[in-house]
Amino acid sequence: MQLKTTILINCPDQSGIISAVTGFIHSKGGNIVYLDQHVDKEASVFFMRLESEFNGNSEFAASLKDDFTKQLAIPYQMEWSLHLGVEKPRMAIFVSKYNHCLYDLLSRFHSGELNVEIPFILSNHADLKYIGGQFNIPFYHIPVNKGAKDKAEEQQLQLLKEHHTDFIVLARYMQIVTSTIINEFPNKIINIHHSFLPAFAGARPYHAAFERGVKIIGATSHYVTEELDAGPIIEQDTCTVSHSHKVHDFVEKGRDLEKIVLARAVQLHVHRKTMVYNNKTVIFS
Amino acid sequence: MQLKTTILINCPDQSGIISAVTGFIHSKGGNIVYLDQHVDKEASVFFMRLESEFNGNSEFAASLKDDFTKQLAIPYQMEWSLHLGVEKPRMAIFVSKYNHCLYDLLSRFHSGELNVEIPFILSNHADLKYIGGQFNIPFYHIPVNKGAKDKAEEQQLQLLKEHHTDFIVLARYMQIVTSTIINEFPNKIINIHHSFLPAFAGARPYHAAFERGVKIIGATSHYVTEELDAGPIIEQDTCTVSHSHKVHDFVEKGRDLEKIVLARAVQLHVHRKTMVYNNKTVIFS
Amino acid sequence: MQLKTTILINCPDQSGIISAVTGFIHSKGGNIVYLDQHVDKEASVFFMRLESEFNGNSEFAASLKDDFTKQLAIPYQMEWSLHLGVEKPRMAIFVSKYNHCLYDLLSRFHSGELNVEIPFILSNHADLKYIGGQFNIPFYHIPVNKGAKDKAEEQQLQLLKEHHTDFIVLARYMQIVTSTIINEFPNKIINIHHSFLPAFAGARPYHAAFERGVKIIGATSHYVTEELDAGPIIEQDTCTVSHSHKVHDFVEKGRDLEKIVLARAVQLHVHRKTMVYNNKTVIFS
Amino acid sequence: MQLKTTILINCPDQSGIISAVTGFIHSKGGNIVYLDQHVDKEASVFFMRLESEFNGNSEFAASLKDDFTKQLAIPYQMEWSLHLGVEKPRMAIFVSKYNHCLYDLLSRFHSGELNVEIPFILSNHADLKYIGGQFNIPFYHIPVNKGAKDKAEEQQLQLLKEHHTDFIVLARYMQIVTSTIINEFPNKIINIHHSFLPAFAGARPYHAAFERGVKIIGATSHYVTEELDAGPIIEQDTCTVSHSHKVHDFVEKGRDLEKIVLARAVQLHVHRKTMVYNNKTVIFS
Repeated sequence: MQLKTTILINCPDQSGIISAVTGFIHSKGGNIVYLDQHVDKEASVFFMRLESEFNGNSEFAASLKDDFTKQLAIPYQMEWSLHLGVEKPRMAIFVSKYNHCLYDLLSRFHSGELNVEIPFILSNHADLKYIGGQFNIPFYHIPVNKGAKDKAEEQQLQLLKEHHTDFIVLARYMQIVTSTIINEFPNKIINIHHSFLPAFAGARPYHAAFERGVKIIGATSHYVTEELDAGPIIEQDTCTVSHSHKVHDFVEKGRDLEKIVLARAVQLHVHRKTMVYNNKTVIFS
Repeated sequence: MQLKTTILINCPDQSGIISAVTGFIHSKGGNIVYLDQHVDKEASVFFMRLESEFNGNSEFAASLKDDFTKQLAIPYQMEWSLHLGVEKPRMAIFVSKYNHCLYDLLSRFHSGELNVEIPFILSNHADLKYIGGQFNIPFYHIPVNKGAKDKAEEQQLQLLKEHHTDFIVLARYMQIVTSTIINEFPNKIINIHHSFLPAFAGARPYHAAFERGVKIIGATSHYVTEELDAGPIIEQDTCTVSHSHKVHDFVEKGRDLEKIVLARAVQLHVHRKTMVYNNKTVIFS
Repeated sequence: MQLKTTILINCPDQSGIISAVTGFIHSKGGNIVYLDQHVDKEASVFFMRLESEFNGNSEFAASLKDDFTKQLAIPYQMEWSLHLGVEKPRMAIFVSKYNHCLYDLLSRFHSGELNVEIPFILSNHADLKYIGGQFNIPFYHIPVNKGAKDKAEEQQLQLLKEHHTDFIVLARYMQIVTSTIINEFPNKIINIHHSFLPAFAGARPYHAAFERGVKIIGATSHYVTEELDAGPIIEQDTCTVSHSHKVHDFVEKGRDLEKIVLARAVQLHVHRKTMVYNNKTVIFS
Repeated sequence: MQLKTTILINCPDQSGIISAVTGFIHSKGGNIVYLDQHVDKEASVFFMRLESEFNGNSEFAASLKDDFTKQLAIPYQMEWSLHLGVEKPRMAIFVSKYNHCLYDLLSRFHSGELNVEIPFILSNHADLKYIGGQFNIPFYHIPVNKGAKDKAEEQQLQLLKEHHTDFIVLARYMQIVTSTIINEFPNKIINIHHSFLPAFAGARPYHAAFERGVKIIGATSHYVTEELDAGPIIEQDTCTVSHSHKVHDFVEKGRDLEKIVLARAVQLHVHRKTMVYNNKTVIFS
């Protein structure tokens, strides 16, 4: 039985790590099909992503983990994770009233392009309930009433746990997510912000961009942290605009950026090509 | 004798302006070879750029101006200007120590791509004096000493006037230009800033971009106003970066953006394709 | 009652057309809110697009057409058309087995971004029938059997006519459309081809691009003519690829290009911003 | 003494190579600062680029080469090369009459951005001789007369050898280079072609692009092979054009693409980030 594995490592930088890790894989009969590494010289931290194929069953996988821990992770002080190719992460989608990112994610999911499970869609409004129906995915409407955000977030948290959610995608969810949720999903909440951050953080970025008279607008997907729109950036893209575009045109052009940039970020996350350090991401190729 | 003219107009928006202007051109025997217009609905301002060809000499051109003023500019409350195709604007270049934008402008000038006169290059440092020599263009070194900026700007202003300068290009000039100069050259000083404004205004934008972990860097050319890096944007462009790029790489990639974006802005200005209103630009095609 | 109109004109180039047309609009009490023109110097053809607002009802609109014909179209030998803002063009969608372009168009339609009627979806396969169901749009399955293409096209033509179809979008329809259909819908069939034409025309462009080792892939939307993949280009876009991408990655990256480029072309067509001449397009801003 | 090395490897793919190579580096006291690898699955070929730092002098470097050959290159059937950080490749520039690529390369060279020696500029015309003078670089004028190309290429070859040239950049050199030169510099001649190859290979690509009515133009840098414009692609980029652009505008916009794309390809070559296989390139990050 072939075992496909992806290993992610970060640890203090020192000489010999790559040799040690690749030697270990080789000693276990593994074949490395992908290796990329990065060193953050300033922080002196080493990052690595490794795809390998082994002959073995789940028992073998367990022993691999044990041996890796003893022979490599402990001596090199690694934070690391091993993912098996068969795992499908469970992705919850939060939305409000805009449907373009939701439709885009669901059509990718539907065509097999997006290798996840989608346990549910959640919204603070009922507007997009019909899309859950169209794609046959449970839709939960949890209103966020003034002064009662705590209660709503508790309900959200319960849903997320019941459904064994691995990560959350905010597909134009127009509510600030607080530490109640963030602390349970560190670097596991992906947001799409409709500007090229750090320009135009916060509310109404297209209006602000229009006011400033920029010639380029953008979209940014990032992991959510407690500081608004300031989390580690995963992916960005831009397109040109001109004086002839009104705010409405910015919004329309921006929608295409938003859905593409969000989808790319989700794919990077699903393929375990992202690592976070010092509020920045390492994005493996 | 063929007279090529470019007319720029802005005035309060009202019905019938295009008909009136094009009727006027027609009545004078002119052939319109380009027309573009824009209405800023919020401000209710009308903008127009018109290229026309007439049969006539300089006397005819003078009477054209007179008649335009009487028949159109006064009744429609226009701010307007008429430029003859034979005019070559006189462009002064300010630099400090980086040479990439300067080299790029001069090589365009040298190959005939840039239809200007370059009366002189001015710098607060002597480092690039040799480039003046290479391209046979006068180079003035006016140091800007602490506490003596006023004096330096007076010298600059005198040079600009002596040389009948039409507009100024700050080709990575690392000094803040004050109102002394700005007021004499309103919307006639083009700066290149090495970020996608409004992100990373001010000093060391590549360092700030690196710190933030952006996946895109940019460059912005704009007209200089008294508020630093906040003038009307003429042109912007971006390119992708990754975690593997160090600040040094941002700087190197950015240099190519800077020189291309600055050159485009200069060309737009030279071809009279820019109009400024409410701290924004209208950029004609 | 306010009447919003879009006028498209092409005619032999000559002096005074803009003045004549804008004068006409003015004489009818119209307000020009958009004007763009283009001259093809080589062919000596003049193109114009004009948006105007009038006070008037449908009777007024009819008399406007009559007067325009007499006063302008006949003397200036114009091909022209006048469209009222209230018209919604009827767009048929042809697909085969890929769903990304279809989903993208339908979600835009559903959110009101795409101002059309969609009378039906047609396919040579039954695979995407469920999407018709999801979005509640009639789906016709017309197989194209070997040697019986004629018959299939007759059925298609009948459907198109019954449903008063204005234009057709080939949203990754993997059959060659013949003159039977093309002649009935000249410059009214929009195709998306998955390469930056004219490179890699014909079948399997991603494979060909991979073989050639390009660093950029693209997508092209164009009007369908009898010569395969050689019709007037409406819109193109590209994205970067690298040696590490396999054909499968080209396909996946390409899907995003295809749906965005096709949607842009459809929008340009719907907003009557395209004109075709000499197998090229004029695309108004 | 610190020894900076770059190692390039290609060999038949098999399990354990990375482990063997990194183990070897480690055993020699080396510190790996960069590693990237690629497997061409179809051809079953493994590629690797490795930057390492050692303590050692030139004697150590020689023994490193010997040991690498014995322990790795022979058993794994590697084609490989080891480059020391202190080496500066010697780059000859061929031009004809256009100066934009030449100016761009020379200004990069002058500012220290381009880590090469430039022994000479060669041209079939005398037009750009003055630029050699401006930058103090020998300029050889070798006319290529009809029927006497052989003789010209012999002279070129002699110059290239006398000057110990490592690679050649065709900076808009408008002559076809024959196998006489190519065979002596395999994968060491970099050309810039002014289209997004494979579209518009051969002469006058901007005219052909204009005729076809494309909405995007491009530039391609590639290694020169005997088949015209068909060698391994190193780098490509594109920009948008519209119906309003004439051939002249394509040429002007294209110039900026050409110089940027050529400069990027030259930098990749100089930093030994390119490998060629099966008429394609692997471009390391």
